[in-house]
Amino acid sequence: MALAARTHPQAELVFAEQCFSEQGHFAGSDTQRTDSFVSLANDPDIDAIWFARGGYGAARIAEAAVQRLNDVAHRKIYLGYSDAGNLLGALYRAGIGQVAHGPMPSDIGRTGGEEAVVRSLDWIVHRLAHTLEPGLVSGQKYAAFNLMTLAMMTGTKLIPDLHGHILIIEEISEYLYAFDRAMFHLCSNLAGQGLAGIRLGGVDDIPETTGHLAKVRKLLSNDGPERMQSPIWDGQKSAIMRKTGLCRSDCCLSEISIAEAAVFLD
Amino acid sequence: MALAARTHPQAELVFAEQCFSEQGHFAGSDTQRTDSFVSLANDPDIDAIWFARGGYGAARIAEAAVQRLNDVAHRKIYLGYSDAGNLLGALYRAGIGQVAHGPMPSDIGRTGGEEAVVRSLDWIVHRLAHTLEPGLVSGQKYAAFNLMTLAMMTGTKLIPDLHGHILIIEEISEYLYAFDRAMFHLCSNLAGQGLAGIRLGGVDDIPETTGHLAKVRKLLSNDGPERMQSPIWDGQKSAIMRKTGLCRSDCCLSEISIAEAAVFLD
Repeated sequence: MALAARTHPQAELVFAEQCFSEQGHFAGSDTQRTDSFVSLANDPDIDAIWFARGGYGAARIAEAAVQRLNDVAHRKIYLGYSDAGNLLGALYRAGIGQVAHGPMPSDIGRTGGEEAVVRSLDWIVHRLAHTLEPGLVSGQKYAAFNLMTLAMMTGTKLIPDLHGHILIIEEISEYLYAFDRAMFHLCSNLAGQGLAGIRLGGVDDIPETTGHLAKVRKLLSNDGPERMQSPIWDGQKSAIMRKTGLCRSDCCLSEISIAEAAVFLD
Repeated sequence: MALAARTHPQAELVFAEQCFSEQGHFAGSDTQRTDSFVSLANDPDIDAIWFARGGYGAARIAEAAVQRLNDVAHRKIYLGYSDAGNLLGALYRAGIGQVAHGPMPSDIGRTGGEEAVVRSLDWIVHRLAHTLEPGLVSGQKYAAFNLMTLAMMTGTKLIPDLHGHILIIEEISEYLYAFDRAMFHLCSNLAGQGLAGIRLGGVDDIPETTGHLAKVRKLLSNDGPERMQSPIWDGQKSAIMRKTGLCRSDCCLSEISIAEAAVFLD
Protein backbone atom coordinates (compact mmCIF):
# COMPACT_ATOMS: atom_id res chain seq x y z
CA MET A 1 0.00 0.00 0.00
CA ALA A 2 2.99 2.24 0.73
CA LEU A 3 4.37 1.39 -2.70
CA ALA A 4 1.07 2.27 -4.36
CA ALA A 5 0.87 5.56 -2.48
CA ARG A 6 4.34 6.44 -3.75
CA THR A 7 3.96 5.35 -7.38
CA HIS A 8 0.25 5.97 -7.92
CA PRO A 9 -0.83 8.69 -5.47
CA GLN A 10 -4.01 9.31 -7.46
CA ALA A 11 -5.22 5.80 -6.64
CA GLU A 12 -6.65 4.76 -3.32
CA LEU A 13 -6.30 1.11 -2.40
CA VAL A 14 -8.92 -0.37 -0.11
CA PHE A 15 -8.38 -3.87 1.22
CA ALA A 16 -11.58 -5.76 1.98
CA GLU A 17 -11.79 -6.94 5.56
CA GLN A 18 -12.53 -10.41 4.26
CA CYS A 19 -9.00 -10.63 2.82
CA PHE A 20 -7.78 -11.15 6.36
CA SER A 21 -10.38 -13.78 7.26
CA GLU A 22 -9.51 -17.44 7.47
CA GLN A 23 -11.63 -20.53 7.27
CA GLY A 24 -9.79 -23.74 6.57
CA HIS A 25 -7.52 -22.89 3.67
CA PHE A 26 -9.90 -20.21 2.40
CA ALA A 27 -10.00 -16.48 3.21
CA GLY A 28 -13.38 -16.72 4.90
CA SER A 29 -16.46 -18.83 4.30
CA ASP A 30 -18.05 -19.10 0.88
CA THR A 31 -20.71 -16.63 2.02
CA GLN A 32 -18.15 -14.16 3.36
CA ARG A 33 -16.09 -14.26 0.21
CA THR A 34 -19.12 -14.01 -2.09
CA ASP A 35 -20.61 -11.11 -0.13
CA SER A 36 -17.30 -9.29 0.01
CA PHE A 37 -16.72 -9.58 -3.73
CA VAL A 38 -20.30 -8.67 -4.66
CA SER A 39 -20.48 -5.64 -2.38
CA LEU A 40 -17.20 -4.23 -3.70
CA ALA A 41 -18.03 -5.00 -7.32
CA ASN A 42 -21.42 -3.32 -6.94
CA ASP A 43 -19.96 -0.30 -5.11
CA PRO A 44 -20.04 2.83 -7.34
CA ASP A 45 -17.14 4.39 -5.40
CA ILE A 46 -14.78 1.67 -6.52
CA ASP A 47 -13.32 1.58 -10.04
CA ALA A 48 -11.45 -1.69 -10.05
CA ILE A 49 -11.29 -5.02 -8.25
CA TRP A 50 -7.71 -6.18 -7.86
CA PHE A 51 -7.67 -9.69 -6.47
CA ALA A 52 -5.26 -9.84 -3.56
CA ARG A 53 -4.00 -13.34 -4.24
CA GLY A 54 -4.71 -16.62 -6.03
CA GLY A 55 -7.95 -17.28 -4.30
CA TYR A 56 -8.39 -20.84 -3.16
CA GLY A 57 -12.02 -21.75 -3.58
CA ALA A 58 -12.86 -19.04 -6.12
CA ALA A 59 -14.52 -21.76 -8.23
CA ARG A 60 -16.94 -22.41 -5.39
CA ILE A 61 -18.40 -18.90 -5.40
CA ALA A 62 -17.94 -17.57 -8.92
CA GLU A 63 -21.27 -18.56 -10.46
CA ALA A 64 -23.37 -17.28 -7.56
CA ALA A 65 -21.31 -14.10 -7.22
CA VAL A 66 -21.59 -13.13 -10.88
CA GLN A 67 -25.38 -13.54 -10.79
CA ARG A 68 -25.59 -10.88 -8.08
CA LEU A 69 -23.66 -8.16 -9.93
CA ASN A 70 -25.36 -4.93 -10.94
CA ASP A 71 -24.74 -2.31 -13.64
CA VAL A 72 -21.95 -0.70 -11.64
CA ALA A 73 -20.07 -3.99 -11.64
CA HIS A 74 -20.38 -4.12 -15.43
CA ARG A 75 -18.26 -0.97 -15.82
CA LYS A 76 -15.41 -2.13 -13.61
CA ILE A 77 -11.88 -3.46 -14.10
CA TYR A 78 -11.00 -6.87 -12.67
CA LEU A 79 -7.39 -8.04 -12.42
CA GLY A 80 -5.75 -11.18 -11.06
CA TYR A 81 -4.61 -14.69 -12.01
CA SER A 82 -4.32 -18.24 -10.65
CA ASP A 83 -7.56 -19.36 -8.98
CA ALA A 84 -8.94 -15.84 -9.32
CA GLY A 85 -9.15 -16.91 -12.97
CA ASN A 86 -12.37 -18.68 -12.02
CA LEU A 87 -13.97 -15.32 -11.25
CA LEU A 88 -12.32 -13.61 -14.21
CA GLY A 89 -13.53 -16.39 -16.50
CA ALA A 90 -17.06 -16.27 -15.12
CA LEU A 91 -17.11 -12.46 -15.50
CA TYR A 92 -15.85 -12.70 -19.06
CA ARG A 93 -18.39 -15.41 -19.83
CA ALA A 94 -21.12 -13.09 -18.57
CA GLY A 95 -19.68 -10.10 -20.48
CA ILE A 96 -19.14 -8.15 -17.29
CA GLY A 97 -16.44 -5.51 -16.96
CA GLN A 98 -12.93 -5.43 -18.33
CA VAL A 99 -11.06 -8.49 -17.11
CA ALA A 100 -7.32 -9.03 -17.19
CA HIS A 101 -4.80 -11.69 -16.18
CA GLY A 102 -1.89 -10.09 -14.33
CA PRO A 103 0.08 -9.61 -11.10
CA MET A 104 -1.65 -9.30 -7.77
CA PRO A 105 -0.71 -7.54 -4.52
CA SER A 106 0.53 -10.85 -3.12
CA ASP A 107 3.25 -10.86 -5.81
CA ILE A 108 5.08 -8.09 -4.01
CA GLY A 109 6.97 -10.56 -1.85
CA ARG A 110 8.73 -12.34 -4.69
CA THR A 111 11.80 -11.37 -6.70
CA GLY A 112 10.74 -8.71 -9.17
CA GLY A 113 7.45 -8.44 -7.36
CA GLU A 114 7.54 -4.67 -6.86
CA GLU A 115 8.01 -4.10 -10.55
CA ALA A 116 5.17 -6.52 -11.32
CA VAL A 117 2.82 -4.80 -8.89
CA VAL A 118 3.70 -1.37 -10.26
CA ARG A 119 2.95 -2.64 -13.73
CA SER A 120 -0.46 -3.84 -12.60
CA LEU A 121 -1.11 -0.42 -11.09
CA ASP A 122 0.09 1.23 -14.30
CA TRP A 123 -2.52 -0.75 -16.12
CA ILE A 124 -5.34 -0.28 -13.62
CA VAL A 125 -4.74 3.44 -13.10
CA HIS A 126 -3.30 4.62 -16.44
CA ARG A 127 -3.97 1.73 -18.83
CA LEU A 128 -0.36 2.06 -20.04
CA ALA A 129 0.36 -0.05 -23.10
CA HIS A 130 3.82 -1.16 -21.98
CA THR A 131 2.25 -3.22 -19.23
CA LEU A 132 0.73 -5.65 -21.70
CA GLU A 133 2.25 -8.83 -23.05
CA PRO A 134 4.41 -7.86 -26.04
CA GLY A 135 3.32 -9.14 -29.42
CA LEU A 136 -0.40 -8.87 -28.89
CA VAL A 137 -2.11 -7.98 -32.16
CA SER A 138 -4.82 -5.36 -32.17
CA GLY A 139 -8.19 -6.84 -33.07
CA GLN A 140 -7.19 -10.35 -32.06
CA LYS A 141 -8.94 -11.74 -28.99
CA TYR A 142 -6.79 -13.23 -26.25
CA ALA A 143 -7.49 -15.10 -23.05
CA ALA A 144 -4.92 -15.98 -20.40
CA PHE A 145 -5.22 -18.50 -17.60
CA ASN A 146 -3.14 -20.62 -15.33
CA LEU A 147 -3.26 -24.05 -16.88
CA MET A 148 -4.62 -25.94 -13.89
CA THR A 149 -7.24 -23.27 -13.20
CA LEU A 150 -8.54 -23.45 -16.76
CA ALA A 151 -8.32 -27.25 -16.88
CA MET A 152 -10.58 -27.38 -13.83
CA MET A 153 -13.04 -24.93 -15.43
CA THR A 154 -13.77 -27.14 -18.45
CA GLY A 155 -17.26 -28.58 -18.32
CA THR A 156 -18.33 -26.16 -15.58
CA LYS A 157 -20.56 -23.10 -15.74
CA LEU A 158 -17.54 -20.85 -15.31
CA ILE A 159 -15.56 -21.32 -18.51
CA PRO A 160 -16.09 -18.55 -21.06
CA ASP A 161 -16.54 -18.97 -24.79
CA LEU A 162 -12.99 -18.96 -26.16
CA HIS A 163 -13.99 -19.12 -29.82
CA GLY A 164 -11.59 -17.06 -31.92
CA HIS A 165 -9.27 -16.39 -29.01
CA ILE A 166 -5.58 -17.06 -28.73
CA LEU A 167 -5.23 -18.76 -25.39
CA ILE A 168 -2.16 -17.91 -23.34
CA ILE A 169 -1.36 -20.60 -20.81
CA GLU A 170 0.82 -20.06 -17.77
CA GLU A 171 1.58 -22.09 -14.70
CA ILE A 172 3.61 -22.05 -11.55
CA SER A 173 4.65 -24.71 -9.08
CA GLU A 174 3.23 -27.65 -11.01
CA TYR A 175 5.10 -30.83 -11.83
CA LEU A 176 5.87 -31.17 -15.52
CA TYR A 177 4.02 -34.49 -15.73
CA ALA A 178 0.96 -32.77 -14.23
CA PHE A 179 1.37 -29.95 -16.76
CA ASP A 180 1.48 -32.54 -19.53
CA ARG A 181 -1.60 -34.33 -18.21
CA ALA A 182 -3.49 -31.04 -17.91
CA MET A 183 -2.53 -30.11 -21.50
CA PHE A 184 -3.95 -33.45 -22.66
CA HIS A 185 -7.15 -32.67 -20.78
CA LEU A 186 -7.35 -29.13 -22.06
CA CYS A 187 -6.58 -29.95 -25.70
CA SER A 188 -9.19 -32.74 -25.61
CA ASN A 189 -11.82 -30.44 -24.12
CA LEU A 190 -11.11 -27.37 -26.25
CA ALA A 191 -10.64 -29.20 -29.55
CA GLY A 192 -13.33 -28.20 -31.98
CA GLN A 193 -14.31 -25.13 -30.01
CA GLY A 194 -12.81 -22.69 -32.48
CA LEU A 195 -9.78 -21.55 -30.52
CA ALA A 196 -7.51 -19.41 -32.69
CA GLY A 197 -4.37 -20.76 -31.05
CA ILE A 198 -2.47 -21.61 -27.92
CA ARG A 199 0.57 -19.75 -26.74
CA LEU A 200 2.75 -20.48 -23.76
CA GLY A 201 3.33 -17.75 -21.22
CA GLY A 202 5.35 -18.13 -18.07
CA VAL A 203 5.99 -21.53 -16.52
CA ASP A 204 8.13 -21.43 -13.45
CA ASP A 205 8.94 -22.85 -10.05
CA ILE A 206 8.59 -26.36 -11.40
CA PRO A 207 9.04 -29.00 -8.69
CA GLU A 208 11.51 -31.69 -9.65
CA THR A 209 10.51 -35.30 -10.02
CA THR A 210 13.70 -36.76 -11.46
CA GLY A 211 17.21 -35.71 -12.26
CA HIS A 212 16.06 -34.97 -15.78
CA LEU A 213 14.17 -31.95 -14.64
CA ALA A 214 17.28 -30.23 -13.37
CA LYS A 215 18.53 -30.49 -16.93
CA VAL A 216 15.26 -29.18 -18.32
CA ARG A 217 15.24 -26.33 -15.87
CA LYS A 218 18.80 -25.42 -16.73
CA LEU A 219 17.95 -25.28 -20.40
CA LEU A 220 14.85 -23.26 -19.69
CA SER A 221 16.70 -20.77 -17.57
CA ASN A 222 19.20 -20.31 -20.36
CA ASP A 223 16.42 -19.26 -22.66
CA GLY A 224 16.83 -15.65 -21.68
CA PRO A 225 16.90 -14.00 -25.10
CA GLU A 226 13.96 -15.99 -26.37
CA ARG A 227 11.71 -15.74 -23.40
CA MET A 228 8.46 -13.93 -23.67
CA GLN A 229 7.71 -10.86 -21.65
CA SER A 230 4.39 -10.41 -20.01
CA PRO A 231 2.78 -8.58 -17.14
CA ILE A 232 2.57 -11.90 -15.35
CA TRP A 233 5.33 -13.28 -13.15
CA ASP A 234 7.82 -11.15 -14.98
CA GLY A 235 10.40 -11.50 -12.26
CA GLN A 236 10.12 -15.27 -12.24
CA LYS A 237 9.69 -15.62 -15.91
CA SER A 238 12.89 -17.51 -16.56
CA ALA A 239 11.10 -20.42 -18.13
CA ILE A 240 9.83 -20.67 -21.64
CA MET A 241 9.49 -24.16 -22.91
CA ARG A 242 10.90 -23.74 -26.37
CA LYS A 243 12.94 -26.88 -25.86
CA THR A 244 9.98 -28.90 -24.74
CA GLY A 245 7.80 -29.10 -27.79
CA LEU A 246 5.05 -27.02 -26.26
CA CYS A 247 6.22 -23.54 -26.97
CA ARG A 248 5.10 -22.62 -30.43
CA SER A 249 3.88 -19.09 -30.39
CA ASP A 250 0.39 -18.68 -31.75
CA CYS A 251 0.20 -22.19 -33.11
CA CYS A 252 -3.25 -23.40 -33.95
CA LEU A 253 -4.82 -25.79 -31.48
CA SER A 254 -5.68 -28.24 -34.18
CA GLU A 255 -1.99 -28.48 -34.99
CA ILE A 256 -1.12 -29.59 -31.50
CA SER A 257 -1.15 -33.33 -31.35
CA ILE A 258 -0.69 -34.89 -27.97
CA ALA A 259 2.81 -35.88 -28.98
CA GLU A 260 3.69 -32.29 -29.78
CA ALA A 261 2.32 -31.11 -26.48
CA ALA A 262 4.79 -33.29 -24.57
CA VAL A 263 6.30 -31.37 -21.75
CA PHE A 264 9.72 -32.93 -21.59
CA LEU A 265 13.08 -32.71 -23.19
CA ASP A 266 13.84 -35.17 -25.95
CA MET B 1 10.25 -59.99 -7.14
CA ALA B 2 11.90 -61.87 -4.27
CA LEU B 3 8.82 -61.16 -2.16
CA ALA B 4 6.52 -62.46 -4.88
CA ALA B 5 8.64 -65.61 -5.29
CA ARG B 6 8.29 -66.26 -1.57
CA THR B 7 4.60 -65.50 -1.13
CA HIS B 8 3.26 -66.50 -4.54
CA PRO B 9 5.66 -69.11 -5.95
CA GLN B 10 3.06 -70.20 -8.50
CA ALA B 11 3.20 -66.77 -10.16
CA GLU B 12 5.98 -65.62 -12.43
CA LEU B 13 6.60 -61.88 -12.56
CA VAL B 14 8.07 -60.50 -15.76
CA PHE B 15 9.13 -56.86 -15.82
CA ALA B 16 8.93 -55.23 -19.23
CA GLU B 17 12.25 -53.82 -20.41
CA GLN B 18 10.48 -50.53 -21.05
CA CYS B 19 9.89 -50.07 -17.31
CA PHE B 20 13.55 -49.19 -17.02
CA SER B 21 13.58 -46.76 -19.96
CA GLU B 22 13.63 -43.03 -19.42
CA GLN B 23 12.62 -40.16 -21.65
CA GLY B 24 12.07 -36.87 -19.93
CA HIS B 25 9.87 -37.71 -16.99
CA PHE B 26 8.35 -40.71 -18.81
CA ALA B 27 9.48 -44.35 -18.81
CA GLY B 28 10.30 -44.30 -22.51
CA SER B 29 8.81 -42.55 -25.51
CA ASP B 30 5.10 -42.71 -26.25
CA THR B 31 5.83 -45.32 -28.90
CA GLN B 32 7.97 -47.42 -26.57
CA ARG B 33 5.39 -47.35 -23.82
CA THR B 34 2.49 -48.09 -26.18
CA ASP B 35 4.33 -50.96 -27.89
CA SER B 36 5.38 -52.43 -24.56
CA PHE B 37 1.88 -52.38 -23.13
CA VAL B 38 0.25 -53.70 -26.31
CA SER B 39 2.70 -56.56 -26.80
CA LEU B 40 2.32 -57.75 -23.20
CA ALA B 41 -1.46 -57.33 -23.20
CA ASN B 42 -1.72 -59.31 -26.44
CA ASP B 43 0.70 -62.02 -25.25
CA PRO B 44 -1.19 -65.29 -24.56
CA ASP B 45 1.52 -66.43 -22.10
CA ILE B 46 0.69 -63.57 -19.74
CA ASP B 47 -2.37 -63.62 -17.50
CA ALA B 48 -2.27 -60.19 -15.92
CA ILE B 49 -0.81 -56.73 -16.45
CA TRP B 50 0.29 -55.20 -13.17
CA PHE B 51 1.29 -51.60 -13.74
CA ALA B 52 4.66 -51.00 -12.11
CA ARG B 53 3.95 -47.45 -10.99
CA GLY B 54 1.73 -44.42 -11.51
CA GLY B 55 2.61 -43.95 -15.12
CA TYR B 56 3.28 -40.35 -16.06
CA GLY B 57 1.94 -39.84 -19.55
CA ALA B 58 -0.46 -42.81 -19.54
CA ALA B 59 -3.14 -40.43 -20.85
CA ARG B 60 -1.00 -39.81 -23.91
CA ILE B 61 -1.02 -43.43 -25.07
CA ALA B 62 -4.20 -44.98 -23.67
CA GLU B 63 -6.55 -44.44 -26.60
CA ALA B 64 -4.11 -45.68 -29.22
CA ALA B 65 -2.99 -48.60 -27.08
CA VAL B 66 -6.50 -49.88 -26.42
CA GLN B 67 -7.32 -49.85 -30.13
CA ARG B 68 -4.50 -52.30 -30.79
CA LEU B 69 -5.57 -54.94 -28.28
CA ASN B 70 -6.64 -58.41 -29.45
CA ASP B 71 -8.87 -61.15 -28.00
CA VAL B 72 -6.12 -62.30 -25.65
CA ALA B 73 -6.02 -58.86 -24.08
CA HIS B 74 -9.76 -59.05 -23.48
CA ARG B 75 -9.34 -62.01 -21.11
CA LYS B 76 -6.67 -60.43 -18.95
CA ILE B 77 -6.46 -58.80 -15.50
CA TYR B 78 -5.19 -55.20 -15.27
CA LEU B 79 -4.23 -53.66 -11.92
CA GLY B 80 -2.83 -50.29 -10.89
CA TYR B 81 -3.83 -46.78 -9.83
CA SER B 82 -2.78 -43.11 -10.13
CA ASP B 83 -2.03 -42.19 -13.74
CA ALA B 84 -2.33 -45.84 -14.74
CA GLY B 85 -6.03 -45.09 -14.15
CA ASN B 86 -6.01 -43.56 -17.62
CA LEU B 87 -5.32 -46.99 -19.10
CA LEU B 88 -7.64 -48.76 -16.66
CA GLY B 89 -10.40 -46.29 -17.49
CA ALA B 90 -9.88 -46.64 -21.23
CA LEU B 91 -9.88 -50.45 -20.91
CA TYR B 92 -13.07 -50.36 -18.86
CA ARG B 93 -14.65 -47.98 -21.35
CA ALA B 94 -13.85 -50.46 -24.11
CA GLY B 95 -15.07 -53.42 -22.04
CA ILE B 96 -11.67 -55.07 -22.13
CA GLY B 97 -10.48 -57.41 -19.39
CA GLN B 98 -11.00 -57.24 -15.67
CA VAL B 99 -9.66 -53.94 -14.39
CA ALA B 100 -8.92 -53.03 -10.78
CA HIS B 101 -7.61 -50.08 -8.80
CA GLY B 102 -5.01 -51.25 -6.30
CA PRO B 103 -1.39 -51.28 -5.13
CA MET B 104 1.48 -51.50 -7.57
CA PRO B 105 5.00 -52.92 -7.30
CA SER B 106 6.33 -49.41 -6.69
CA ASP B 107 4.37 -49.33 -3.42
CA ILE B 108 6.80 -51.78 -1.86
CA GLY B 109 9.09 -48.98 -0.74
CA ARG B 110 6.58 -47.25 1.51
CA THR B 111 5.44 -48.06 5.03
CA GLY B 112 3.06 -51.00 4.82
CA GLY B 113 4.09 -51.45 1.21
CA GLU B 114 4.95 -55.14 1.45
CA GLU B 115 1.54 -55.95 2.82
CA ALA B 116 -0.10 -53.89 0.08
CA VAL B 117 1.87 -55.62 -2.64
CA VAL B 118 1.10 -59.06 -1.21
CA ARG B 119 -2.59 -58.14 -1.20
CA SER B 120 -2.39 -57.19 -4.85
CA LEU B 121 -0.74 -60.53 -5.59
CA ASP B 122 -3.42 -62.29 -3.53
CA TRP B 123 -5.99 -60.71 -5.79
CA ILE B 124 -4.17 -61.28 -9.06
CA VAL B 125 -3.18 -64.87 -8.32
CA HIS B 126 -5.95 -66.15 -6.05
CA ARG B 127 -8.72 -63.53 -6.34
CA LEU B 128 -9.02 -63.59 -2.54
CA ALA B 129 -12.02 -61.65 -1.26
CA HIS B 130 -10.22 -60.15 1.73
CA THR B 131 -8.12 -58.06 -0.61
CA LEU B 132 -11.11 -55.97 -1.65
CA GLU B 133 -12.36 -52.77 -0.09
CA PRO B 134 -14.67 -53.74 2.80
CA GLY B 135 -18.30 -52.83 2.46
CA LEU B 136 -18.63 -53.43 -1.27
CA VAL B 137 -22.08 -54.72 -2.07
CA SER B 138 -22.49 -57.58 -4.50
CA GLY B 139 -24.28 -56.50 -7.66
CA GLN B 140 -23.41 -52.84 -7.18
CA LYS B 141 -20.99 -51.40 -9.73
CA TYR B 142 -17.97 -49.51 -8.41
CA ALA B 143 -15.22 -47.48 -9.99
CA ALA B 144 -12.15 -46.16 -8.21
CA PHE B 145 -9.74 -43.49 -9.37
CA ASN B 146 -7.27 -41.01 -8.06
CA LEU B 147 -9.13 -37.72 -8.06
CA MET B 148 -6.73 -35.77 -10.24
CA THR B 149 -6.41 -38.60 -12.74
CA LEU B 150 -10.18 -38.83 -13.16
CA ALA B 151 -10.61 -35.05 -13.19
CA MET B 152 -8.19 -34.90 -16.12
CA MET B 153 -10.07 -37.69 -17.94
CA THR B 154 -13.38 -35.80 -18.08
CA GLY B 155 -14.20 -34.69 -21.61
CA THR B 156 -11.57 -36.98 -23.11
CA LYS B 157 -11.94 -40.25 -25.00
CA LEU B 158 -10.60 -42.17 -22.02
CA ILE B 159 -13.29 -41.75 -19.38
CA PRO B 160 -15.63 -44.74 -19.07
CA ASP B 161 -19.39 -44.65 -18.64
CA LEU B 162 -19.88 -44.42 -14.87
CA HIS B 163 -23.67 -44.64 -14.97
CA GLY B 164 -24.95 -46.59 -11.97
CA HIS B 165 -21.51 -46.81 -10.38
CA ILE B 166 -20.46 -45.77 -6.91
CA LEU B 167 -17.32 -43.81 -7.51
CA ILE B 168 -14.52 -44.20 -4.96
CA ILE B 169 -12.15 -41.27 -5.00
CA GLU B 170 -8.65 -41.36 -3.58
CA GLU B 171 -5.69 -39.02 -3.74
CA ILE B 172 -2.17 -38.65 -2.55
CA SER B 173 0.20 -35.71 -2.33
CA GLU B 174 -2.29 -33.08 -3.47
CA TYR B 175 -2.95 -29.81 -1.68
CA LEU B 176 -6.38 -29.67 -0.08
CA TYR B 177 -7.31 -26.58 -2.07
CA ALA B 178 -6.43 -28.46 -5.26
CA PHE B 179 -8.50 -31.40 -4.04
CA ASP B 180 -11.40 -29.03 -3.47
CA ARG B 181 -11.00 -27.46 -6.91
CA ALA B 182 -10.86 -30.88 -8.54
CA MET B 183 -14.01 -31.98 -6.69
CA PHE B 184 -15.78 -28.90 -8.04
CA HIS B 185 -14.64 -29.84 -11.52
CA LEU B 186 -15.59 -33.49 -11.16
CA CYS B 187 -19.00 -32.85 -9.60
CA SER B 188 -19.78 -30.33 -12.36
CA ASN B 189 -18.75 -32.76 -15.08
CA LEU B 190 -20.36 -35.91 -13.65
CA ALA B 191 -23.60 -34.28 -12.54
CA GLY B 192 -26.50 -35.73 -14.48
CA GLN B 193 -24.52 -38.73 -15.68
CA GLY B 194 -26.31 -41.17 -13.43
CA LEU B 195 -23.61 -41.88 -10.90
CA ALA B 196 -24.97 -43.93 -7.99
CA GLY B 197 -22.78 -42.15 -5.46
CA ILE B 198 -19.39 -40.90 -4.44
CA ARG B 199 -17.35 -42.37 -1.64
CA LEU B 200 -14.04 -41.19 -0.32
CA GLY B 201 -11.20 -43.67 -0.13
CA GLY B 202 -7.71 -42.84 1.05
CA VAL B 203 -6.38 -39.31 1.01
CA ASP B 204 -2.89 -38.97 2.35
CA ASP B 205 0.44 -37.23 2.23
CA ILE B 206 -1.29 -33.87 1.92
CA PRO B 207 1.19 -31.01 1.53
CA GLU B 208 0.58 -28.16 3.91
CA THR B 209 -0.35 -24.69 2.77
CA THR B 210 -1.14 -23.07 6.09
CA GLY B 211 -1.02 -23.86 9.78
CA HIS B 212 -4.61 -25.00 9.51
CA LEU B 213 -3.64 -28.07 7.65
CA ALA B 214 -1.53 -29.36 10.49
CA LYS B 215 -4.70 -29.25 12.53
CA VAL B 216 -6.66 -30.98 9.80
CA ARG B 217 -4.01 -33.62 9.43
CA LYS B 218 -3.91 -34.23 13.15
CA LEU B 219 -7.64 -34.76 13.23
CA LEU B 220 -7.48 -36.99 10.22
CA SER B 221 -4.74 -39.13 11.69
CA ASN B 222 -6.83 -39.58 14.83
CA ASP B 223 -9.57 -41.11 12.73
CA GLY B 224 -8.15 -44.59 13.20
CA PRO B 225 -11.26 -46.50 14.21
CA GLU B 226 -13.40 -44.88 11.56
CA ARG B 227 -11.04 -45.08 8.67
CA MET B 228 -11.92 -47.18 5.69
CA GLN B 229 -9.83 -50.16 4.72
CA SER B 230 -9.03 -50.79 1.13
CA PRO B 231 -6.47 -52.54 -1.00
CA ILE B 232 -5.11 -49.13 -1.87
CA TRP B 233 -2.49 -47.31 0.17
CA ASP B 234 -3.51 -49.34 3.16
CA GLY B 235 -0.32 -48.60 5.01
CA GLN B 236 -0.67 -44.88 4.40
CA LYS B 237 -4.38 -44.80 4.85
CA SER B 238 -4.36 -42.68 7.97
CA ALA B 239 -6.56 -40.05 6.41
CA ILE B 240 -10.29 -40.19 5.98
CA MET B 241 -11.95 -36.86 5.71
CA ARG B 242 -14.86 -37.40 8.01
CA LYS B 243 -14.11 -34.06 9.59
CA THR B 244 -13.98 -32.24 6.30
CA GLY B 245 -17.48 -32.47 4.93
CA LEU B 246 -16.47 -34.71 2.07
CA CYS B 247 -16.59 -38.11 3.63
CA ARG B 248 -20.11 -39.38 3.40
CA SER B 249 -20.02 -42.99 2.48
CA ASP B 250 -22.14 -43.80 -0.55
CA CYS B 251 -23.81 -40.42 -0.68
CA CYS B 252 -25.57 -39.64 -3.90
CA LEU B 253 -23.77 -37.25 -6.23
CA SER B 254 -26.85 -35.12 -6.59
CA GLU B 255 -26.78 -34.58 -2.84
CA ILE B 256 -23.31 -33.13 -2.91
CA SER B 257 -23.50 -29.42 -3.27
CA ILE B 258 -20.27 -27.58 -3.74
CA ALA B 259 -20.51 -26.35 -0.17
CA GLU B 260 -20.75 -29.89 1.11
CA ALA B 261 -17.75 -30.90 -0.91
CA ALA B 262 -15.60 -28.36 0.91
CA VAL B 263 -12.30 -29.86 1.84
CA PHE B 264 -11.49 -28.00 4.98
CA LEU B 265 -12.18 -28.03 8.64
CA ASP B 266 -14.95 -25.81 9.88
